[in-house]
Amino acid sequence: MVANTPTPSRAVVEHLVRQAVYQRMGKPLPTAASAPNPLVVNVRSRHCHLTPDAVEQLFGKGHRLTVRQWLYQEGQFAAEETVTLAGPRNRAISNLRILGPCRNLNQVELAGADAIALGLEIPLRRSGNTQGAPGCRLLGPAGFFELAEGVIRAERHAHMHPKDAEFYGVKAGDFMKLRLGGECGLVLERLLCRVDPAFKLEIHIDTDEGNACNLQPDTPCELFK
Amino acid sequence: MVANTPTPSRAVVEHLVRQAVYQRMGKPLPTAASAPNPLVVNVRSRHCHLTPDAVEQLFGKGHRLTVRQWLYQEGQFAAEETVTLAGPRNRAISNLRILGPCRNLNQVELAGADAIALGLEIPLRRSGNTQGAPGCRLLGPAGFFELAEGVIRAERHAHMHPKDAEFYGVKAGDFMKLRLGGECGLVLERLLCRVDPAFKLEIHIDTDEGNACNLQPDTPCELFK
Repeated sequence: MVANTPTPSRAVVEHLVRQAVYQRMGKPLPTAASAPNPLVVNVRSRHCHLTPDAVEQLFGKGHRLTVRQWLYQEGQFAAEETVTLAGPRNRAISNLRILGPCRNLNQVELAGADAIALGLEIPLRRSGNTQGAPGCRLLGPAGFFELAEGVIRAERHAHMHPKDAEFYGVKAGDFMKLRLGGECGLVLERLLCRVDPAFKLEIHIDTDEGNACNLQPDTPCELFK
Repeated sequence: MVANTPTPSRAVVEHLVRQAVYQRMGKPLPTAASAPNPLVVNVRSRHCHLTPDAVEQLFGKGHRLTVRQWLYQEGQFAAEETVTLAGPRNRAISNLRILGPCRNLNQVELAGADAIALGLEIPLRRSGNTQGAPGCRLLGPAGFFELAEGVIRAERHAHMHPKDAEFYGVKAGDFMKLRLGGECGLVLERLLCRVDPAFKLEIHIDTDEGNACNLQPDTPCELFK
């Protein structure tokens, strides 16, 4: 299991060091450092969530997903398995990563640039709300799976523990803003707050958003209302 | 020449209508509508600027660029001619559009996503400042051209007439902010002001930035300090 222990995020280490330094100096913590949890911002590349049935159709009877890398949210992982997504106009995206564990709904999350490359118009949706979103065909080594609907662009969002929501003064469904600094910095508005006791504070943005500000491990991040 | 007359930008038409409506109602113009010029925001996809020499090496002795489409800035055009850009690791981008007229410097402008796809680390630069930026090989129907340096990510910027700069209270080299609204709205910070009597007010953002906010013809835009 050692190989599967994730490297702690830079933001987590910095947060702990900052808290320790201020405590040793006997100085009050600045607002950001006094947050119950570090602010972790991660780019979510295109991926899909699948049902056990879809995994079996794509990879064979009885197949179960293999953990490739554990993600920051507890129990979530990037699987070894990938599929090819075939869209309209004979265009395809290969190596679409599956995120596990399996869910009870099939959903493909693409960035805007992916949708343009495929020639697919996709709606901006929060995860799980796939009704009426376009479908696609997924191809795996054992067969294909026809997704009737569920290709979306995921609304940018923050996973928050109730303690984080309390600290920032927000509740589930509220919108916040995220400033990403640097020489091509920007402020992402309409960042959806998702609150659950199982969540660790983590912001998910897509590749377009990450590239627009050239997000790096040392990019200054600020979350505010 | 009729075929080359550009369709007026939606922003230009809206600006004129807004000014006319307020005048007929006898009401004072709101700040944005009282601006000397409409706020036009355009996505600049990857492209290159070439010297006459480079064009001849790529397309043949005596070749001159053909106008495909006039751009919003007076005298600037997208050429019919495109080249293939070959980067390191045998990766290439085909159909890289040449913008005319020719300049006295060769420069390739890519979005962050393009650079990642090529496996090329490129600096964020203002146009014309290409020193030390990576090179590449360009391929045309008549030959290839080795660009020793000049592949950059163009700093997001506003072309401004001195009257625009006066209205917004900025000078050349200042930075402004641009809010792009909608359901995945954002504020681009560090938007460089470029001021010249030959310029028409126009903001250039790249494809990553345009996709990040899903820029559409009716996206509300606000330029501020």
